[in-house]
Amino acid sequence: MDQQAQEQRDVALMRRALELAARGPVADPNPRVGAVVLDASGEVVGEGWHHGAGTPHAEVEALRAAGSGAAGGTAVVTLEPCNHTGRTGPCSQALADAGVARVVYAQSDPNPVAAAGARTLRDARVEVVGGVLALEAAALNRAWTFAVSHGRPMVTWKFAATLDGRSAAADGTSQWVTGPAARADVHDLRAECDAILVGTGTVLTDDPRLTTRHPDGTLRARQPLRVVVGERDLPAAARVLDDAAPTVHLRERDPALVLKALAAREVRHVWLEGGPTVAAAFLAAGLVDEVVAYLAPALLGAGAAAVGDLGIQTIGEALRLVPREVTTIGEDIKVVATVAPQGGR
Amino acid sequence: MDQQAQEQRDVALMRRALELAARGPVADPNPRVGAVVLDASGEVVGEGWHHGAGTPHAEVEALRAAGSGAAGGTAVVTLEPCNHTGRTGPCSQALADAGVARVVYAQSDPNPVAAAGARTLRDARVEVVGGVLALEAAALNRAWTFAVSHGRPMVTWKFAATLDGRSAAADGTSQWVTGPAARADVHDLRAECDAILVGTGTVLTDDPRLTTRHPDGTLRARQPLRVVVGERDLPAAARVLDDAAPTVHLRERDPALVLKALAAREVRHVWLEGGPTVAAAFLAAGLVDEVVAYLAPALLGAGAAAVGDLGIQTIGEALRLVPREVTTIGEDIKVVATVAPQGGR
Repeated sequence: MDQQAQEQRDVALMRRALELAARGPVADPNPRVGAVVLDASGEVVGEGWHHGAGTPHAEVEALRAAGSGAAGGTAVVTLEPCNHTGRTGPCSQALADAGVARVVYAQSDPNPVAAAGARTLRDARVEVVGGVLALEAAALNRAWTFAVSHGRPMVTWKFAATLDGRSAAADGTSQWVTGPAARADVHDLRAECDAILVGTGTVLTDDPRLTTRHPDGTLRARQPLRVVVGERDLPAAARVLDDAAPTVHLRERDPALVLKALAAREVRHVWLEGGPTVAAAFLAAGLVDEVVAYLAPALLGAGAAAVGDLGIQTIGEALRLVPREVTTIGEDIKVVATVAPQGGR
Repeated sequence: MDQQAQEQRDVALMRRALELAARGPVADPNPRVGAVVLDASGEVVGEGWHHGAGTPHAEVEALRAAGSGAAGGTAVVTLEPCNHTGRTGPCSQALADAGVARVVYAQSDPNPVAAAGARTLRDARVEVVGGVLALEAAALNRAWTFAVSHGRPMVTWKFAATLDGRSAAADGTSQWVTGPAARADVHDLRAECDAILVGTGTVLTDDPRLTTRHPDGTLRARQPLRVVVGERDLPAAARVLDDAAPTVHLRERDPALVLKALAAREVRHVWLEGGPTVAAAFLAAGLVDEVVAYLAPALLGAGAAAVGDLGIQTIGEALRLVPREVTTIGEDIKVVATVAPQGGR
């Protein structure tokens, strides 16, 4: 096979591996990974994907399916094979042990602990090709990639407000600023995160459940960790303390220390639901990476603002966002935006 | 010609009349009207459109072009021919005098003074067909139709704010919340209105020009009336008092009386630019019909709100809007919404 045909074949196999990877769980301490193993003649003899932390890695699953067929063959994997012994043994060693002659991978391992799998393979005289459809692979594990390379969870701040920026009316009422379609969307996005974070103020005022539910109100199978931050005690009867999902109360107000504690629990993606004080603390600390805003086509003229004081004095200091998605959802407007690197901050 | 062929021919001719009408000025005390005159054999012998207040009506222009050819022929007009003597004589009489045998029109005249042109024509034994493409014709003169049927100008409130509803930073700075594309759009929309309205507070704080300008800063040919409302005196050096456009200072704070004064000046469409106090007064009085919001993808956390107190206490009383258009414009988000009839207000 000439060079160009080889590259086209690698890309086609990587697309298959990405399809397999996408079958894994979205919210998990581990990334979603897919693998395809070919025998020496180029026939597919094994496929696998990672089913989540504590289960075999994708390469191991594919190698098991391939059996002795892997010898002299090729492994196509969406992530650079790991090199460390964690919950499972190093995949780079497993591939070498199986006699695989060539490994093609997409995303380089951003994890400084697990990295260098490619070198181990090369040392074992395995031919290694990296970077095939690397961006697609990284996008599949957006939060994990962010968390591993930044050493902290990715933070998405969600807020709902009227067109004039009010999250509640003058008397504190806020149910419902936005409509049922927007609320259902929130449950979909909560379900993709590892933790839902609020301040003690929100628990004391609104007594939210912080679970992910189906439109009929029933609980979804998997629940993110519920995180309440702040020094005030929670009432024993608070809904957030019920048995619908695990909950942790961090008596801590420093956003950086909160994220450090959550990183230690292998949280990769935090869904920050405010209120204004906690949201302002994370925003002012530069620890919000993404904003999801649901804007109701309504005006209140008074009431609680969506976000509290950010310490911004003048218009040039405004926290600038880069919109990635502007859509309508039911009657409401949904804006997804990335927080731009702030020049003067 | 059978009935169906006749109707198809009427629609085709009305489309042509609408094209002609669209050549007229958008912002004018009079509606945009187009007319096509056919001779007895069905040949087009005259076309015309209204060029604005003080010039001949479309029918008159088309009849002049047709000359004696109109006798026994058909006139196709986008608006029911007028019946009253205003700046010009009644068109219904002119059509009858020209010997037109059949008149087809689109929109019925919503003006109680001018109406009944169709009856005058029928009394003169002219065959009259109304309502052909009536909605298209009304859309062409949206503000005029509104103003004539409601007895007051249509009011569009424009505001620019950050995603968290701030129109200025804590220190009062607001240039520029939104980007150049949004600002250019504002000048386009201002130019479609008859009057630009602000409160004395905006003049004293921001000293705006309130003109419609091209992107290079030069003045457009036509300038809407600049209207400042409120009891405070304006500084003689205020830009709004320069000779770039006519200006009127109404020492009046009641929105209904302000609109009454503007209706008397034949203003059909008011472009309300705030600030928060004037905007709140019009909104609370139920005298805002449309909202155009430019939302910058930015957060301020503090500073002046886009709109002041509306007297709304609880979430159920929120002023509900119906979004008609949600788009991105440059980096900003543009929302055009109609103010919904308010149930409990």
